[in-house]
Amino acid sequence: MSAIVYLTRKAEFSASHLYHNPQFSAEENKRVFGKCNNPNGHGHNYVLEVTVKGQIDATTGFVVDLKQLKDLMHQEVLDALDHRFLNKEIPEFFSLIPTTENLALVCWQRLAPKLAAARLHRVRIYETPDLFADFYGEV
Amino acid sequence: MSAIVYLTRKAEFSASHLYHNPQFSAEENKRVFGKCNNPNGHGHNYVLEVTVKGQIDATTGFVVDLKQLKDLMHQEVLDALDHRFLNKEIPEFFSLIPTTENLALVCWQRLAPKLAAARLHRVRIYETPDLFADFYGEV
Amino acid sequence: MSAIVYLTRKAEFSASHLYHNPQFSAEENKRVFGKCNNPNGHGHNYVLEVTVKGQIDATTGFVVDLKQLKDLMHQEVLDALDHRFLNKEIPEFFSLIPTTENLALVCWQRLAPKLAAARLHRVRIYETPDLFADFYGEV
Amino acid sequence: MSAIVYLTRKAEFSASHLYHNPQFSAEENKRVFGKCNNPNGHGHNYVLEVTVKGQIDATTGFVVDLKQLKDLMHQEVLDALDHRFLNKEIPEFFSLIPTTENLALVCWQRLAPKLAAARLHRVRIYETPDLFADFYGEV
Amino acid sequence: MSAIVYLTRKAEFSASHLYHNPQFSAEENKRVFGKCNNPNGHGHNYVLEVTVKGQIDATTGFVVDLKQLKDLMHQEVLDALDHRFLNKEIPEFFSLIPTTENLALVCWQRLAPKLAAARLHRVRIYETPDLFADFYGEV
Amino acid sequence: MSAIVYLTRKAEFSASHLYHNPQFSAEENKRVFGKCNNPNGHGHNYVLEVTVKGQIDATTGFVVDLKQLKDLMHQEVLDALDHRFLNKEIPEFFSLIPTTENLALVCWQRLAPKLAAARLHRVRIYETPDLFADFYGEV
Repeated sequence: MSAIVYLTRKAEFSASHLYHNPQFSAEENKRVFGKCNNPNGHGHNYVLEVTVKGQIDATTGFVVDLKQLKDLMHQEVLDALDHRFLNKEIPEFFSLIPTTENLALVCWQRLAPKLAAARLHRVRIYETPDLFADFYGEV
Repeated sequence: MSAIVYLTRKAEFSASHLYHNPQFSAEENKRVFGKCNNPNGHGHNYVLEVTVKGQIDATTGFVVDLKQLKDLMHQEVLDALDHRFLNKEIPEFFSLIPTTENLALVCWQRLAPKLAAARLHRVRIYETPDLFADFYGEV
Repeated sequence: MSAIVYLTRKAEFSASHLYHNPQFSAEENKRVFGKCNNPNGHGHNYVLEVTVKGQIDATTGFVVDLKQLKDLMHQEVLDALDHRFLNKEIPEFFSLIPTTENLALVCWQRLAPKLAAARLHRVRIYETPDLFADFYGEV
Repeated sequence: MSAIVYLTRKAEFSASHLYHNPQFSAEENKRVFGKCNNPNGHGHNYVLEVTVKGQIDATTGFVVDLKQLKDLMHQEVLDALDHRFLNKEIPEFFSLIPTTENLALVCWQRLAPKLAAARLHRVRIYETPDLFADFYGEV
Repeated sequence: MSAIVYLTRKAEFSASHLYHNPQFSAEENKRVFGKCNNPNGHGHNYVLEVTVKGQIDATTGFVVDLKQLKDLMHQEVLDALDHRFLNKEIPEFFSLIPTTENLALVCWQRLAPKLAAARLHRVRIYETPDLFADFYGEV
Repeated sequence: MSAIVYLTRKAEFSASHLYHNPQFSAEENKRVFGKCNNPNGHGHNYVLEVTVKGQIDATTGFVVDLKQLKDLMHQEVLDALDHRFLNKEIPEFFSLIPTTENLALVCWQRLAPKLAAARLHRVRIYETPDLFADFYGEV
């Protein structure tokens, strides 16, 4: 019987985005989204935190292979989103508004199916140091 | 069926306080509270973290309107507590010792009734970068 | 004879940008600027640090009126650049590549003429927590 | 009926370690642990976060006496581990690989039996600012 | 001929203060100092950074004995100012407004005469993470 | 005539070290170096900050090619020192005590000869978030 530990790894990426709902009028978009509705977009240094949950493997002392976790975060999220305009270049955001909430959800959807032994526990996205969203896979 | 996300917003305020229980003797106050018993008070740059929990609204991508959350934090907590001596100027602390624990509780009591669609999940107060208290509404 | 102190104030803004020199070929732009050449832009949470140098005023204890400095930073830099695509919306960057270096220079040019009693000493711009540029007005 | 609050205190210690499983071949150790298998060790500024859970004491406003918690963290963890080579000097790590996961577990085992009124809720260990492990006592 | 290095050590203290000039009218004090004029005071987690400059000692590799520097910072500044109301309890501030600028100056005056081989180069005081003052001994 | 800007890039590495002067007696080593004299070593997450000074290149907006600076920091410092026991594995420290001061000096000596157009201005090494050394090439 082995201890269950939650391991978290952080990484940063830089992207731009805008908030716009095509079903809203121009006034409605401006009222609801304010400065975030600027069609040229603006950007952030996002911080992605991925937490996996699992038993400590007695032969390695690891809950998850750190190298594999790092590679997975790069392949599924960082390489795709870094230095991109989310609304224009990331398929999920062609129809979904790239709020911090939806970014956490999309990162979860990209990472969860690829994690085996260790289970994805939480995805946290910081849009700024003072604003972040957590998703635990709850629907 | 929409994803449930926890959104957290941080803000800072500066206040002073002291720890003192009028039912304790002077010696007891000194022994229990140490330097924090100085009647002149001392102060901190407190950090308030407010976490709300809710379903992502499909039309906005938000769990909570960020502008409303920011305004609420200002009206209920920041405008009232910032640049104040908590024991002397904040009614809750006329009878309650303004520890980090009680500050988290008081911020919860001020914020929870005002949040509608999104539910208050956690209030965190940092007294210093190395000391913080979390309250989830548990009694 | 009064002490000379350097006072620094920080503030954050979010913007997007891209690096592109119209006199370079497409290949040259890609080679020199890499991912930063993406025409859609990408973004950052920039941190602006403004340092003013002056004698401590004996009647106020200030080198500079903090409220005036804050207002100046907002009027000249933050309100103009926050939530903007620098290349497309900020006149200085119609012809200047918005590198961290040039951003520091532009912020200096916007702030220096407006500071009276206290002299602008340094402008620092953080593009990410790991990359920043300092300009002291040297040419 | 009193509010239940989670109080967290942070502290830092500096130690060195290496990852090595004597049952693995040299090649296996190198493949699994990479640079962390260097027999001379390497080191980190670890950050220990201890979270205790309890009811707010009405006479003090505390969930736990902060001085006692600080002393306990020093006696049981910091004084023992600070400026040490974990594999060679800390008994638990003579047979256990000192990964971040196992460090969180060992700190829990050292602290939990010593906490009385307030219950240990979580031990978090940061190996670097971008990697941390949480243990809640789950097996 | 030995290399000249600048060594900096940080420490934190918590204090309260208010801004008030007895030669100003009540209205003038309110206009100039705003919320900082609250007679009850308010507080901050101040961060003190002390930088000493000197040649590296070939036998120790030190510019300054770190233990002595730490002790000096405690004796001259931290033990005196921590958990105090600066205006009421620190003699220098009976007649001097405890702005960030003046705090840097007072810390310099307390530390400079006590440093021997290594020369005091700079005192920095952070009032908040976004506001700090540097004093280099210039008058 | 172009503006002169100081560009700084940060990176982290993890290493272990000990302080010991073979010309000191065991008692002297213990008295001067305290816990840092542990022969097994202990470790830190060091932060290296490299500042280069130069004119902004009009065609790129750069003071220095960021990719080249990053590669140089890796080749000359990070790849060599990361996950190493400095005293045993880094030639400069076979005879030099690896204090923060000497680390800053050694990093300067490794980097300065490799920088061409832009001149090395400062090397800063953080041993912990509260202790750092700056070297500007002064002897």
